[in-house]
Amino acid sequence: MSDPKGKAAGSPDGAVPKAVVNRLSLYLRELQHLVRDGRETTSSNQLGRVLGFTDAQVRKDLAYFGHFGYPGIGYRCDELIRAIRKILGTNQQWPMAMVGVGNLGRALLGYKGFQQQGFRIVAAFDSDPHKMGSVIEGVQVYHLDSLPEITATNRIRLGIIAVPAAAAQAAADSLVAVGVEGILNFAPVTIALPEHVNLVGVDLAIELEQLSFAVANRGSAKSESAPKHSNEMD
Amino acid sequence: MSDPKGKAAGSPDGAVPKAVVNRLSLYLRELQHLVRDGRETTSSNQLGRVLGFTDAQVRKDLAYFGHFGYPGIGYRCDELIRAIRKILGTNQQWPMAMVGVGNLGRALLGYKGFQQQGFRIVAAFDSDPHKMGSVIEGVQVYHLDSLPEITATNRIRLGIIAVPAAAAQAAADSLVAVGVEGILNFAPVTIALPEHVNLVGVDLAIELEQLSFAVANRGSAKSESAPKHSNEMD
Repeated sequence: MSDPKGKAAGSPDGAVPKAVVNRLSLYLRELQHLVRDGRETTSSNQLGRVLGFTDAQVRKDLAYFGHFGYPGIGYRCDELIRAIRKILGTNQQWPMAMVGVGNLGRALLGYKGFQQQGFRIVAAFDSDPHKMGSVIEGVQVYHLDSLPEITATNRIRLGIIAVPAAAAQAAADSLVAVGVEGILNFAPVTIALPEHVNLVGVDLAIELEQLSFAVANRGSAKSESAPKHSNEMD
Repeated sequence: MSDPKGKAAGSPDGAVPKAVVNRLSLYLRELQHLVRDGRETTSSNQLGRVLGFTDAQVRKDLAYFGHFGYPGIGYRCDELIRAIRKILGTNQQWPMAMVGVGNLGRALLGYKGFQQQGFRIVAAFDSDPHKMGSVIEGVQVYHLDSLPEITATNRIRLGIIAVPAAAAQAAADSLVAVGVEGILNFAPVTIALPEHVNLVGVDLAIELEQLSFAVANRGSAKSESAPKHSNEMD
């Protein structure tokens, strides 16, 4: 789901493939589930099985970052959670700015999944004067003119774009101008960013295409001749 | 972003790795951009470069499904678009049902990216009687009791869950009961589905973790010692 323009996270000029970083997130979620269920340890086999990866894949992914397992024990869940959060950078809080307070923006302000992982939208921005000063899900809405001041005060390094397609590039330019280092773009349009700013584009139709592929090819996609444990699996 | 529970699209029991299907979507988007820019042909090299994959990766991915290139010409964009849409199942329209008409639901009803790829939400469902009969972005809101009738009338095979976490499993059960074959789940919770129903879970924090990883590891992730053209790259 990375946007090809701008420097995509984990792009070929970085050391760690994007797919590996993506799997780290999946391992983290599964470890968090296990801890919630009272489990203290797990194995690459167990972690892989529930996610549909081989144990070798799990070990190879983690080996990019160090040695985390113990002979005869496996992984200590809490310890591996801390390690992965440190790798992903979510051992710290990430205050974020959101541009665009339409339906999507409001939905994202109420999205519980962000805070659970250390991401917090601390300020929202819109160009509609009627929205100024309102507070949505505890987050204040400002005019875009206030972006430089609010960003500096709150040490905001990540931004979310939730404006219509036609306004997305201007929103991105504003975020870049105030020094934001990473942008999550929900607008269904390609935006151009300077080399040093990371961009992840969310294209929700891609998720649906995974579904339509699976439903449309049911049965016919079950051929035994194709690789079953491809490295590409994620 | 597949949910580990239920039968994930492209899971190990299928022939085509999920990552390959994901890349097909990216190739399709890029081809659509090229056509919009007036291009008639392209190459694996060009398609790969703009997306950050090697030309070998592009050829390998497409080879799962057939032979699409012409010697001395490369790929004909229109033809490859048609072929990929057929593979992804988006050469047909997919009428969809959405359960949950809160902020997220409203945002999804207005999301332009779905229709562009052949997905159309034809009916929305909610349990709040105040929402019944309203029309949002041209889509009628019904009570969940009408799900069997509306689903049958509109030949709906895919469903979207946009309810709060606590209501997600019940929403999924309702969709399964009326014969929906694939579910896109936006609720930040794991839901269980019968084996024959495909599930894709959208966890937006995973996208943010890609960003925080890239921003937090800037510089340090640039080591030349790691593989640059790993098969795992996507």
